Amino acid sequence: MNEVDLLIINGVVVTMDSDEAVIANGAVAISGDRIIDIGPKEKFSDCQAAKVIDAKNGIIMPGLINTHTHASMTCFRGLADDLHLMTWLNDYIFPAEAKLNYEKVKTGALLACAEMILSGTTCFADMYLFEDAVAEAAAQAGMRAVVGEVLYDFPSPSYGLIEEGFVYTENLIKKWKGDSLITVAVEPHSPYLCGPDLLIKAGALSKKYEVPLIIHVAETQTEVHTIFERYGKTPIAHLGGIGVLSPLLLACHCVALTDKDIELLASFDVKVSHNPESNMKLASGIAPVPQLMDAGVCVGLGTDGCTSNNDVDMFLEMDTAAKIHKVNTLDPTVMDAKTVLKMATIDAARALGLDKLTGSLVPGKKADVIIIDTNKPHLTPMYNLHSHLVYAASGNDVDTSIINGQVVMENRALLTLDIAKVMADVNQVADEIKLSR
Amino acid sequence: MNEVDLLIINGVVVTMDSDEAVIANGAVAISGDRIIDIGPKEKFSDCQAAKVIDAKNGIIMPGLINTHTHASMTCFRGLADDLHLMTWLNDYIFPAEAKLNYEKVKTGALLACAEMILSGTTCFADMYLFEDAVAEAAAQAGMRAVVGEVLYDFPSPSYGLIEEGFVYTENLIKKWKGDSLITVAVEPHSPYLCGPDLLIKAGALSKKYEVPLIIHVAETQTEVHTIFERYGKTPIAHLGGIGVLSPLLLACHCVALTDKDIELLASFDVKVSHNPESNMKLASGIAPVPQLMDAGVCVGLGTDGCTSNNDVDMFLEMDTAAKIHKVNTLDPTVMDAKTVLKMATIDAARALGLDKLTGSLVPGKKADVIIIDTNKPHLTPMYNLHSHLVYAASGNDVDTSIINGQVVMENRALLTLDIAKVMADVNQVADEIKLSR
Repeated sequence: MNEVDLLIINGVVVTMDSDEAVIANGAVAISGDRIIDIGPKEKFSDCQAAKVIDAKNGIIMPGLINTHTHASMTCFRGLADDLHLMTWLNDYIFPAEAKLNYEKVKTGALLACAEMILSGTTCFADMYLFEDAVAEAAAQAGMRAVVGEVLYDFPSPSYGLIEEGFVYTENLIKKWKGDSLITVAVEPHSPYLCGPDLLIKAGALSKKYEVPLIIHVAETQTEVHTIFERYGKTPIAHLGGIGVLSPLLLACHCVALTDKDIELLASFDVKVSHNPESNMKLASGIAPVPQLMDAGVCVGLGTDGCTSNNDVDMFLEMDTAAKIHKVNTLDPTVMDAKTVLKMATIDAARALGLDKLTGSLVPGKKADVIIIDTNKPHLTPMYNLHSHLVYAASGNDVDTSIINGQVVMENRALLTLDIAKVMADVNQVADEIKLSR
Repeated sequence: MNEVDLLIINGVVVTMDSDEAVIANGAVAISGDRIIDIGPKEKFSDCQAAKVIDAKNGIIMPGLINTHTHASMTCFRGLADDLHLMTWLNDYIFPAEAKLNYEKVKTGALLACAEMILSGTTCFADMYLFEDAVAEAAAQAGMRAVVGEVLYDFPSPSYGLIEEGFVYTENLIKKWKGDSLITVAVEPHSPYLCGPDLLIKAGALSKKYEVPLIIHVAETQTEVHTIFERYGKTPIAHLGGIGVLSPLLLACHCVALTDKDIELLASFDVKVSHNPESNMKLASGIAPVPQLMDAGVCVGLGTDGCTSNNDVDMFLEMDTAAKIHKVNTLDPTVMDAKTVLKMATIDAARALGLDKLTGSLVPGKKADVIIIDTNKPHLTPMYNLHSHLVYAASGNDVDTSIINGQVVMENRALLTLDIAKVMADVNQVADEIKLSR
């Protein structure tokens, strides 16, 4: 370890490793795409680094992981708010989505990648149309991503027949196999838009390739009623009944759960993506996250898309996650700052099956690292790192970001994207949408 | 109107006036401490301005008004989170507050002023100890403020006898009378820490000087039980019974209300300060704000202090206010973006009795104006100004701030405070607190 590519010095290292180790005046050494070593600064006195980054007494920590979003929906941010779900979907979102194509989806995803990098996210899980465009955008931005083409029981703007969705997915899996940044998942939309045949087939495909199976489920009480009318079961029990519950399943939202559902999720080691701001804005409800965690379910945090949030800032999402469950349970001790920080880092990585690669700063893992500038009025004074990261910081406090060993942002300058062009392109997409309304 | 001190051009003017007028490519002319004129840019073609500020196609709007905070508690930010209320108060907050003095309170308030200016707040209402220090800090920062010494039925660190609290308040009223920025209020802490005698006297003092009467009330269900045990009434009914309800009263929190309480508040034209993030973090509950507004009660938004939030960013508070009531009522149409924006501007001004002076951009009002830089990834594209301000913007997007005609921040540089010194001073206060624990 005498020669490394990159050495980050002069920061408090918040590792989020299994010991929750925090190293004052620490350093992180990176070579290629990997973390080589972590320790107090002295340990690296003989180290020759091709590049040194000074954390300026800030916080060096794992990049945040967004377990559920629809990146390209940045194109529709602010198009439709404060509406009933069906008005929102039928009068605004579906008509706008019908006009999408590969290029527009890529444009929207590039903007989301820029925002995510600028707010400290280094990895995201996406579900949308033309998902190869999202994979290409993430690769161009240098972001780690789990992508999956949304599958429904009806044609999508990106394919004509249901069967083609599976072909698309399998081609995507093959295309990106072995890629250092992109993982492909199988992503049926939900139990209410996908019949049992589709879900069973999706589950089988996920197991065949050992890739995540990602679905929206139990998002609203209305969904629970619909599924109960159709199948005589809760959505989770329905998925259990057709053999789709598995450790590969990431169940997004999980707002409307029974105690029995929670037991089922735990017994099958199903992972949950918690999206509190979206669930609040759409008036879906509040997921029983403290109960899920008590039952041993792995819960990762996510923002959902920009039409139901309307940002992808995981720091702000952490703040909301920490607060909403306190008021919901009337217990101020639930969802403490450390727990929430885990939900946005190592537990999020585990939810996506990526915990061997990322989610904590550990030698041998991929170098997905962010540096927080704590020399700011709203982060002064400093009693407790974890508290500041959850309750006081925002994505804007992230100074530098490294993904897979590549510096993608330094001193808040994006290095992988031409942000002015990306913004201009999205504005053009929005102009077309405005004209067509 | 041919010569003005300051002309702001090239922005969309969101006036928040009674017509909710929005002026594309508008301008705002300021002379002395007042707004002189507002209109489309062309109207000002002959105008000679001593200084011109280019809003660069951003948003020109009234500064935000924080109706309830404890500014100096910035000194304790992150000292104690995720705790039960009584542990938090008795083991952390009260011991830390016992060590405060005038200088420390001023130091903490200066930091809060810096943060507030940096996040677009131009006016705040404060309750704390050594409140003259907060007034001095606000005046130094160039901020508009409503300040009031907290009154209890026991000695405070800033005065020995209960009676002295009233003397302190009256002296404060006299000292700042006629000041262009500072208004003094009478501020009994709460019905559970102030007996009827104190409350009646406080009410009389508020009426004598026609200044706001500000109190914490109905913050928790525990308080409701306590007051019911003592007086056989809800806290609001108790205040009514002793004649303290009046249009001058600003009732902070109002989480635990009955329908009858809401009627009472409406019939006496009592104003309410809504502090959703604090109520969530302390697990107090969710104030019935949509019901209060339906009953015609004026509700202003506030952040509460930095130990229960832990920031004073009113943009983030707006986002939370918009979302929490949707999920609480399971109705996504309540608390739409415009309504929430009013709660942080004109309605907040009305809650503090300052609506003739500030809270909207109207010729003749004081010039309390902020400029939002919308040329940012997370504010792209632009379909709806109000949506972006509430759901996507954060305080960090505020580029420039003018209070009482004075430019206090320009291009994010604070012009009235030496922020490095303020931060160093607060860090020193925190070091003392750490040592004494």
